[in-house]
Amino acid sequence: MLGLMQNWPLLCHRIIDHAAAIHGQQEVVTRSVEGPIHRTTYAAIRGNALKVGQQLDRHGIKIGDRVATIAWNTWRHLEAWYGIMGIGAVCHTVNPRLFPDQIVWIVNHAQDRIMMTDLTFVPLLEKIADKMPSVERYIVFTDRAHMPQTTLKNAIAYEDWIAEADGDFRWKEFDENTAAAMCYTSGTTGDPKGVLYSHRSNVLHAMMANNPDALGTRAKDTMLPVVPLFHANSWGIAFSAPSMGTKLVMPGPKLDGASVYELLSTEKVTYSAGVPTVWLMLLQYMATEKKTLPDLKVVVCGGSAMPRSMIKAFMDMGVEPRHAWGMTEMSPLGTVGALKPPFANLTGEAALDVLQTQGYPPFGVQMKITDDAGKPQPWDAKTFGRLKVSGPSISKAYYRLDANILDEDGFFDTGDVATMDPYGYMRITDRSKDVIKSGGEWISSIDLENLAVGHPKVLEAAVIGVQHPKWDERPLLIVQLKPDQQATREDILQYMDGKIAKWWMPDDVQFVDSIPHTATGKILKIALREQFKDYRFPTAAA
Amino acid sequence: MLGLMQNWPLLCHRIIDHAAAIHGQQEVVTRSVEGPIHRTTYAAIRGNALKVGQQLDRHGIKIGDRVATIAWNTWRHLEAWYGIMGIGAVCHTVNPRLFPDQIVWIVNHAQDRIMMTDLTFVPLLEKIADKMPSVERYIVFTDRAHMPQTTLKNAIAYEDWIAEADGDFRWKEFDENTAAAMCYTSGTTGDPKGVLYSHRSNVLHAMMANNPDALGTRAKDTMLPVVPLFHANSWGIAFSAPSMGTKLVMPGPKLDGASVYELLSTEKVTYSAGVPTVWLMLLQYMATEKKTLPDLKVVVCGGSAMPRSMIKAFMDMGVEPRHAWGMTEMSPLGTVGALKPPFANLTGEAALDVLQTQGYPPFGVQMKITDDAGKPQPWDAKTFGRLKVSGPSISKAYYRLDANILDEDGFFDTGDVATMDPYGYMRITDRSKDVIKSGGEWISSIDLENLAVGHPKVLEAAVIGVQHPKWDERPLLIVQLKPDQQATREDILQYMDGKIAKWWMPDDVQFVDSIPHTATGKILKIALREQFKDYRFPTAAA
Repeated sequence: MLGLMQNWPLLCHRIIDHAAAIHGQQEVVTRSVEGPIHRTTYAAIRGNALKVGQQLDRHGIKIGDRVATIAWNTWRHLEAWYGIMGIGAVCHTVNPRLFPDQIVWIVNHAQDRIMMTDLTFVPLLEKIADKMPSVERYIVFTDRAHMPQTTLKNAIAYEDWIAEADGDFRWKEFDENTAAAMCYTSGTTGDPKGVLYSHRSNVLHAMMANNPDALGTRAKDTMLPVVPLFHANSWGIAFSAPSMGTKLVMPGPKLDGASVYELLSTEKVTYSAGVPTVWLMLLQYMATEKKTLPDLKVVVCGGSAMPRSMIKAFMDMGVEPRHAWGMTEMSPLGTVGALKPPFANLTGEAALDVLQTQGYPPFGVQMKITDDAGKPQPWDAKTFGRLKVSGPSISKAYYRLDANILDEDGFFDTGDVATMDPYGYMRITDRSKDVIKSGGEWISSIDLENLAVGHPKVLEAAVIGVQHPKWDERPLLIVQLKPDQQATREDILQYMDGKIAKWWMPDDVQFVDSIPHTATGKILKIALREQFKDYRFPTAAA
Repeated sequence: MLGLMQNWPLLCHRIIDHAAAIHGQQEVVTRSVEGPIHRTTYAAIRGNALKVGQQLDRHGIKIGDRVATIAWNTWRHLEAWYGIMGIGAVCHTVNPRLFPDQIVWIVNHAQDRIMMTDLTFVPLLEKIADKMPSVERYIVFTDRAHMPQTTLKNAIAYEDWIAEADGDFRWKEFDENTAAAMCYTSGTTGDPKGVLYSHRSNVLHAMMANNPDALGTRAKDTMLPVVPLFHANSWGIAFSAPSMGTKLVMPGPKLDGASVYELLSTEKVTYSAGVPTVWLMLLQYMATEKKTLPDLKVVVCGGSAMPRSMIKAFMDMGVEPRHAWGMTEMSPLGTVGALKPPFANLTGEAALDVLQTQGYPPFGVQMKITDDAGKPQPWDAKTFGRLKVSGPSISKAYYRLDANILDEDGFFDTGDVATMDPYGYMRITDRSKDVIKSGGEWISSIDLENLAVGHPKVLEAAVIGVQHPKWDERPLLIVQLKPDQQATREDILQYMDGKIAKWWMPDDVQFVDSIPHTATGKILKIALREQFKDYRFPTAAA
């Protein structure tokens, strides 16, 4: 027997409709790419989003067609999102920080028909446009006065383009499982993989994110998403903030400490969200300039691990730091690290111990950790396992890729290795391809690296697993010393001795002149493995 | 093109699964019907809920079968909810405050197969059991020691019943649109009507309620739902609190001021929710006994309008009062009255003016006000209209009733008349059957009544529309004076003069010895209309 409740599909444009109807006067403030601060409202954003939809419709964009954006966080980008999705087209956010060849590959794979971009990226696109034949037209997010001369095909200034529409237009009707947006992940190996969000997944993610232990802002809050709209679905903030009527402050292209501070301060921002690098720049600027942020209440930090010193710095400011973990494939929220019972009243180092974990999953994200055979591992805060996740905002497949990516229970393997504690707090200990499997037990390469860099002469450390006849794999520690420093294998191992389990100790230390990195600054272990592919442990010869 | 996100149906039992996995140690504290305070956890509640499901399954309860509860807010009632819903049966909450004949009618209409109830209601049920032949078995929420002698068919103590199960049981699998729960509304006329919630509607409602401007508690909060599980889906709190890991404090049968105060105080409750009568009792108790509640942060008040003095009393205590409005047909949340821009920083009388409205709808509730022809009316805070609503947790039909209850846009007519302001704040001005339609314009009977009772000699006032040859209808004011007081028609009208628009002034005043009420204390206007059916205005004769 079915319930007798209304059929009300979860569609992304219902969010901007709600924001315009109930919070229509609420402001969206942007540091524009052209320079000045720009102010608009949710009602005006919806009005322009309808014009975007109308113009795309006139162009012949159909349900399921891809429309790309390469752009900063601005009100125009937000208008484009809702306009694209509201006609059932797929908003494909492209990360401008990728290598140009990757952008070309992604746009061709997605077969984007329209490209909407900022002034910043016009020179980049001009260089690669001839390799992206699917793009029929370029829309530049600016007005006529700022529109450059360009070779981009059918280029037009966004303001001119939407001025051609009268806005007398209705959103298209379609099923809530219709594709709404697309974002490619680019790992260290293989081709990028396209994550395809649905209207349902985006709306459910926003509702999940709105809980007050996640990103849940109130209508009287002000949210500044430093995290870009092109990064992992902007952590859902482009949906969650309007759904609550929260004022949005969009930082545009300037993400340095001084610029972010200025917006946080002048707009009295209460919530913000971004990666550790951004917060490091902000905290350094504030320390140097002796600045304060009395209105700031919560900072959500994800993308990579939040250093303990940063968590403490925010707490000392009276700001609640929320360590978050997620993935593009998860829309992206996986866990958020708010203090909850029995830890809710902890302070000082004890609180930091909890806040340094990646947090616990909200309702809507199920987790398990398993061994390689898929057997669930205990939640004892010690046992590692492959972290696998399930939920309505989590991928089941990649765009135009046939591979099955779910296990037999329908869980997605995150590629991370983690521990869970009895209270649901998760701690990432490694990437599964990097974890060292020694005699059936797992050793965290990240824990060893974090320990080794504590040595005063070590600049950076990397640990890889090297084949071992008896133990299957054993850890090899690779060290880059600080300039003009000298240290021996024994110096380093002696420093580590006693700080970890005996059997975790690296079997050897190798010194290198430099450790290779990816474009986004992560250690490129694949290159290290190649470099040390013929290496054999001294102990292994025995 | 469809998105590529996981198929993860929104099912009620996923909420208790989440609570048990991530917040398993979190407490649920109950003032038991037997007397003592009882403590359990979400993990234990899920364990017993599985046993309930297992026992119902063994009994032969199938997907879609109805299982009734007539019970207070206790941990056992919560276990029963999740156990019933987790096998796809329909949890039918019956309101024990209804007349026995109404209970009989409802149980027969629903064809409930099992009845689960508290000790309190065993005598009531024994009197009517023979009129409810569909009920195959009665489960009494108690243990063997407290189990009374009873004539109820196949009666067993709940604890004995679930002890027969080993809990080695899995939830059933079914579509998210499957019926999960049922609640009958009983108006002043006609038969009760069955609202049939789905798993999807309950889960979406919980996610909506979890936003911090609605009922959104944090995992470190403590929620005491005074509102019963048998009243309008318990305002969704049985779903929203576990989904957040919030500690629940269940008041059992004792809802008087002293008892509610004791639980709020000893359990350091931060959020509570209930009807104005309950808060009145609490505030009177606290004033008399000079008590304080330093931990209480938010009180949500709905069911009927929250008096201005009560809103002020809570604000003076440092508690945020949230005026809420909803309906059983809405799961039930319709609006919640948090202060938002541009009102967020108001204090004193100006804040009270906003907080006295019924609030604004969260994302997931769409509203419109229309005239009788269905034409939308402006949101100017002045124009009345029939209030119509749409959303995924709102009824589209009643159980076993063929009538279409939606308009051509799919909106449900609430039967209320309201104004909307430009910021989405809604104010109920009347029931649509009570509003007076004079010369094409609408006059609020409630506003006139509220004004008339301000006269020092008036005990209670009711306004009904009476036919008028020129104006269609005109207001008749019916007054019950305070004991031993005397007043004339002119006294009353003179008092009202100048305080309302001239054309709103009642055409006449009639004095009565007593004004009739419904079982729940509302003015029974249908009886007044009958009483005055032959009444003609003096002005109408002209």
